[in-house]
Amino acid sequence: MKVLGVIVEYNPFHNGHLYHLTLAKELVKPDYVVAIMSGSFCQRGEPAIISKFSRAEMALLNGIDLVFELPFVYAIQDAGGFAKGAVWSLHHTGVVTDIVFGSESADLAFLQKIARIMAEQPEPFPAMMKEELKKGHSFPNARKYALMRYFEVTGEMNPKEVLKIEKSNDILGVEYLKSLIELNSPIRPHVVKRVGAEDKDERFRGKFSSATAIRKCILKGDWEKVAKAVPTSSLQIISRELNEGRGPVSLQDLELLILSKLRLVDRFQLQRLHGFNEGIDKRFVECATKVSNLEEFFSCVKSKRFTLSKIRRLSLYSFFELDSQLIEKSNTLGPQYLRVLGFNSKGRELLSKMKRVSTVPIISLCSLYKKVLEQSLKKPERFKIDAKLFERQLMYDIKSTSIHSLMFPRHSERIGDMDFKFPPIAIS
Amino acid sequence: MKVLGVIVEYNPFHNGHLYHLTLAKELVKPDYVVAIMSGSFCQRGEPAIISKFSRAEMALLNGIDLVFELPFVYAIQDAGGFAKGAVWSLHHTGVVTDIVFGSESADLAFLQKIARIMAEQPEPFPAMMKEELKKGHSFPNARKYALMRYFEVTGEMNPKEVLKIEKSNDILGVEYLKSLIELNSPIRPHVVKRVGAEDKDERFRGKFSSATAIRKCILKGDWEKVAKAVPTSSLQIISRELNEGRGPVSLQDLELLILSKLRLVDRFQLQRLHGFNEGIDKRFVECATKVSNLEEFFSCVKSKRFTLSKIRRLSLYSFFELDSQLIEKSNTLGPQYLRVLGFNSKGRELLSKMKRVSTVPIISLCSLYKKVLEQSLKKPERFKIDAKLFERQLMYDIKSTSIHSLMFPRHSERIGDMDFKFPPIAIS
Repeated sequence: MKVLGVIVEYNPFHNGHLYHLTLAKELVKPDYVVAIMSGSFCQRGEPAIISKFSRAEMALLNGIDLVFELPFVYAIQDAGGFAKGAVWSLHHTGVVTDIVFGSESADLAFLQKIARIMAEQPEPFPAMMKEELKKGHSFPNARKYALMRYFEVTGEMNPKEVLKIEKSNDILGVEYLKSLIELNSPIRPHVVKRVGAEDKDERFRGKFSSATAIRKCILKGDWEKVAKAVPTSSLQIISRELNEGRGPVSLQDLELLILSKLRLVDRFQLQRLHGFNEGIDKRFVECATKVSNLEEFFSCVKSKRFTLSKIRRLSLYSFFELDSQLIEKSNTLGPQYLRVLGFNSKGRELLSKMKRVSTVPIISLCSLYKKVLEQSLKKPERFKIDAKLFERQLMYDIKSTSIHSLMFPRHSERIGDMDFKFPPIAIS
Repeated sequence: MKVLGVIVEYNPFHNGHLYHLTLAKELVKPDYVVAIMSGSFCQRGEPAIISKFSRAEMALLNGIDLVFELPFVYAIQDAGGFAKGAVWSLHHTGVVTDIVFGSESADLAFLQKIARIMAEQPEPFPAMMKEELKKGHSFPNARKYALMRYFEVTGEMNPKEVLKIEKSNDILGVEYLKSLIELNSPIRPHVVKRVGAEDKDERFRGKFSSATAIRKCILKGDWEKVAKAVPTSSLQIISRELNEGRGPVSLQDLELLILSKLRLVDRFQLQRLHGFNEGIDKRFVECATKVSNLEEFFSCVKSKRFTLSKIRRLSLYSFFELDSQLIEKSNTLGPQYLRVLGFNSKGRELLSKMKRVSTVPIISLCSLYKKVLEQSLKKPERFKIDAKLFERQLMYDIKSTSIHSLMFPRHSERIGDMDFKFPPIAIS
């Protein structure tokens, strides 16, 4: 039995996603396809444009059999934490045999070599990395320069090759491979060549536009363009959600929430949170009082070391009070459950197979999570669960979704605890 | 030298305020008039409709010589905490000789009697109070019933007289008198009969309308009515502020801030805060996820025991994370400073007299508060200051003002730390 796993955000599901999914299926010829998908907030440090439930629906209508929610605490981390949570989740299913991810270089051997260096930290790489970080480079840049120096010394590879991993999918790809190595996972990785626009390319590029560009069109109400760039079923779901007042949601909607939070905290409170080191806490507090909107805030805080995505993520960490202990524990112990967002009939079949082999408990009905936790704690030989971490991770999924719905344009839709109110999406 | 002290919110300054101020001056014939005024948030659990700076200006243009800011931690407490902070502040000036307050009953001897019972808790009053609270009454109602029972037993007064203190000014008056008794203050209290509408009367009643009614007219843009109910100088200031996009601010503007906060916290976090006892923490958390707006939230939480004002205040306590330790310490040690919001030439004169006699340090330039604190700590024989409490009280004044300005309609006016940017308002 072959089970293909993909790591996605589908914010929203577009033609590029469909194309890559088709390629991935041709490559692996799987019996089932499983996706691990960000929930209400995404890796770029933004709320998803529509609800996670409707995004799971889009996935199911476009060839995914079973969708799990990537816990919030991983979904809004940098590439490393995001990849770790996602790969670990697919590994925990106990059924995924192959992972396919998009890559700009599409050179698996090369990415594997980099991933191995990152996972195994051979000498003298760690010292080089430290030095480059000290110079004030952002993490991805420091890694790039350290790798170039490492290859210059070892001669393993032409140092200039390293420049190939500047694109976002390759950066993520390295992290996926690194996580597979660290987990010693039997899952086989594959790459498919990315086509069309890069994620961060904000311009509309027709049929294969980036999710960022498509979101911009949705926010502007430019439906003609959206229709060109997403499958019909996606378009229908996006339209339905917007018509019913459940979107679009953007970071702009959180402007006052984030700024007010930052005007109330002090640096010492921020220092307890994930990622607030190297003086960024001071800048955050000072800038929040100086500026009059979120855009000004981002430019005020921005520096060579901190990318815009990172600053957006840090803003969310402060709003959600994501303390560093929780993130460290999550990155050490991994996701504590697999939360089902939706399935089709094949997905349901796979789910019942998983019930015997998954290495973390499966939450199908979120309202029954306490029962799931209790029963899992009774099987310590199968599940290595930290009960407190399980609850904290899940509470963040639920609470971030309660915040997401509070941002809906239609007031009557702004109800919380949606996770407790609905069963998973089932497509027949 | 006679110095009249008044306790005010001036949200906004209206004809009723002017009338009472005139009566008070006729009564006391003071050389100077000092006001202690709420800052950015008021006792009804709402943000002030315009900034504290512009409200101080209105006060100075209408006969007040010197305006101090009632620290936030007192301004948003119930009648007891509000009165305590205000009376204690006037007492700390070292110059105030007389306090005049409005009263529906205008029966000082009667209010004094009640205040004395509240301050001295003669037997068997405490047990009666406890019993009435146990029955589920709100604090003001429990007090009313306990007093009636107390007078029935002691025969000191006709129990039905107690019904006279149902109006808000009499309730506050009792608390002012109680605080004077507790401080053993030499300040002489006086009452003037309230005219016109009660504070909570939301209907417009012409020349003497309540501040609540006037705020409603401002929010609706009904300027004809506003003009009838406030002095010309008030009208000019309100218009200027609104024209420049610095108001009106209302609790509605904090809707998403409050609801998002309550969707993120758990009951145990709320229990650490001031006032969250008797299960109200659970109701707050449950209602916040259920409802889709603030109005629904208030009706969801409301009960016989908790008045709407109290629920609004509790909502602010949760948003501002006002922990019970801070409030208890503030109510035990009192205000740690006198913060000058503005003065006229007479006020400046009085201020220089106060510099020798005030029993807490005076903060004229907020940006120099650290220096003021340092120098005060060097004079322990004169100032009994708790440095940490001083800073926490002041930070709340500053931060609540940073939140208040974030609610301004004009984006460019939404800058924080206004307290550090301007000297006190000086009117010549």
